[in-house]
Amino acid sequence: MSIIDDTIASIEEVDAGLFDIAKERLDTLTKPRGSLGRLEEFASRVVAITGTTTPRIDKKTIFTFAGDHGVSKEGVSAFPKEVTPQMVYNFLSGGAAINVLGNLAGAKVVVVDVGVDHDFDAKDASSNGLVRRKVIKGTANIKKGPAMSEEETLRCIETGIELAEEYALTGSIYGTGEMGIANTTPSSAIIAALTGCDADLVTGSGTGIDEASRLHKAKVIKEAIEVNRPDPSRPLDVLAKLGGTEIAAICGLVLGAAERRVPIVIDGFISTAAALVATELEPKVKDYLFAAHNSVEKGHAMMLERMGLTPFVDLSLRLGEGTGAAIGMILVEAGVRIYNEMASFEDAGVSGAVT
Amino acid sequence: MSIIDDTIASIEEVDAGLFDIAKERLDTLTKPRGSLGRLEEFASRVVAITGTTTPRIDKKTIFTFAGDHGVSKEGVSAFPKEVTPQMVYNFLSGGAAINVLGNLAGAKVVVVDVGVDHDFDAKDASSNGLVRRKVIKGTANIKKGPAMSEEETLRCIETGIELAEEYALTGSIYGTGEMGIANTTPSSAIIAALTGCDADLVTGSGTGIDEASRLHKAKVIKEAIEVNRPDPSRPLDVLAKLGGTEIAAICGLVLGAAERRVPIVIDGFISTAAALVATELEPKVKDYLFAAHNSVEKGHAMMLERMGLTPFVDLSLRLGEGTGAAIGMILVEAGVRIYNEMASFEDAGVSGAVT
Repeated sequence: MSIIDDTIASIEEVDAGLFDIAKERLDTLTKPRGSLGRLEEFASRVVAITGTTTPRIDKKTIFTFAGDHGVSKEGVSAFPKEVTPQMVYNFLSGGAAINVLGNLAGAKVVVVDVGVDHDFDAKDASSNGLVRRKVIKGTANIKKGPAMSEEETLRCIETGIELAEEYALTGSIYGTGEMGIANTTPSSAIIAALTGCDADLVTGSGTGIDEASRLHKAKVIKEAIEVNRPDPSRPLDVLAKLGGTEIAAICGLVLGAAERRVPIVIDGFISTAAALVATELEPKVKDYLFAAHNSVEKGHAMMLERMGLTPFVDLSLRLGEGTGAAIGMILVEAGVRIYNEMASFEDAGVSGAVT
Repeated sequence: MSIIDDTIASIEEVDAGLFDIAKERLDTLTKPRGSLGRLEEFASRVVAITGTTTPRIDKKTIFTFAGDHGVSKEGVSAFPKEVTPQMVYNFLSGGAAINVLGNLAGAKVVVVDVGVDHDFDAKDASSNGLVRRKVIKGTANIKKGPAMSEEETLRCIETGIELAEEYALTGSIYGTGEMGIANTTPSSAIIAALTGCDADLVTGSGTGIDEASRLHKAKVIKEAIEVNRPDPSRPLDVLAKLGGTEIAAICGLVLGAAERRVPIVIDGFISTAAALVATELEPKVKDYLFAAHNSVEKGHAMMLERMGLTPFVDLSLRLGEGTGAAIGMILVEAGVRIYNEMASFEDAGVSGAVT
């Protein structure tokens, strides 16, 4: 059995019986029943996911996977490709948005090179802290042929699974993140291929291209699908032909988190495309996911709907890196703290509802 | 000149020239321009509100004002009136939702008795920490006549202004909160009176009453408006005739925050009704407000629209106390930390956009 098959086979349904037990406890707390809305839902879900009525959220990790994309040659991004490794260095030195928001959330940011087209010299102190799991030096140009082989795709997925296993502890929660210039292009291509919808409907302006460039990008995506003819019934085929190394690694992280019963907060557009692949591989995965925010990127809402996830933060973010996941984690933690720390009506001597 | 007139006269427009300066700085940071959406807006607004290009958000205070309501006799709430003082004790001992979320936000929760129908014995250790500013022991039943006199209303407003002044320091941000059984009823009445809309459109199920009780509540509100005939062009008249002590105090806190150029995060339905009164008294106040979340209470969205505020968290909260404000504060802080802590393209050696 392969690592990925083994992981998928080990994913269990969340313990639905615990929802009622969690709700019972939440209803004893000094607030009108259900008045904390989705915070109560988060607490119940963490109870069901982790299988304990005494849940903890105190080991937060955001995994930011970096990879390059051959399709960046096609003028689909506002930024040049060298920005991918430059931003990796920026993550490692703490200057990026994900560092700031990771700190705010009390989360460790784990930066993983899974497919950057750059040699990070291990002797160079500026790459200290990098998790070195390079599978390839960037994907091939999907407009011309497959992004990578299926074997390479599996190695990227396994990287995600392995990290999910390595970091799993009682109290863990994960967030997904990514960096890869041009990576909204493969993400949109994956969504179009998996759902059969027109590429134009799921192609946004990414880091900030104009409408003419966006139309060009949608055309590149259509060509990539025509050239590669991915089989929508085989998510691995779609991922290999249209994907990215970081997208495959996030897919693996999601599978590994579900296997280890770790709640996982999905960041924006690219992470959601990766999570979508994971849920197509194994639908039980959905119950382990939290969708943090409404990305402004076209097609994000459609993916969330397909997975049955409702986001809870509306900040018009379109950055990625894990920034939305960092914010989402804070609110999942809020729910768990409500569950753990509030006084009951009885303990506080507060009268209950009369109706 | 009265304290309130003096405060209103001292409220200045925010420094709009600073928006461009803040945006300039934000655009040098290592992210696509504008990609952090509303977090960037929050940073710019805090710069303009506080009048400094080196903003800080490190002294967070949530003011939870408590008051009782004569209209609670009319069966408009699911909870008995004695819950108001019981919850005050719960706030003081740290067992309520606002304590948990205040801790999460790193905010001090200041609990103020401005109108509770209960004697908090100063010698009783369980009331330690209470800010004792009682103006009256609960309002009169608005179905029968005015909630309070205009002079009492002014004293409640002044209490809010005084606290806003007392706590104002560099780095301050305030959140509003309240506790008062039945207080969605006066809030809905105020909104209906100020906007002229039908009471039914702004009357929700509060702490969780059924539809029959909600219709009864809307009827009580209509009667209160008919009996009291508040003058919509005089917000103080509306507040005195239909309001609550805690609602008036929050109105004062908002005015005082604007006077002292302190950003203030408005909690849910009741706090928003209070903020609406403040903005009717002085429209310049709007620029100092952050609307944290979409309450599920009917009429909340309409008030926010009237004030030109767009909420950013969607958690289906309907608790009050300041819980939504606590969460909102975290995200305003996130914006300011992005502004202060991220590296620039130049410092990090990252290439800029090519388009």
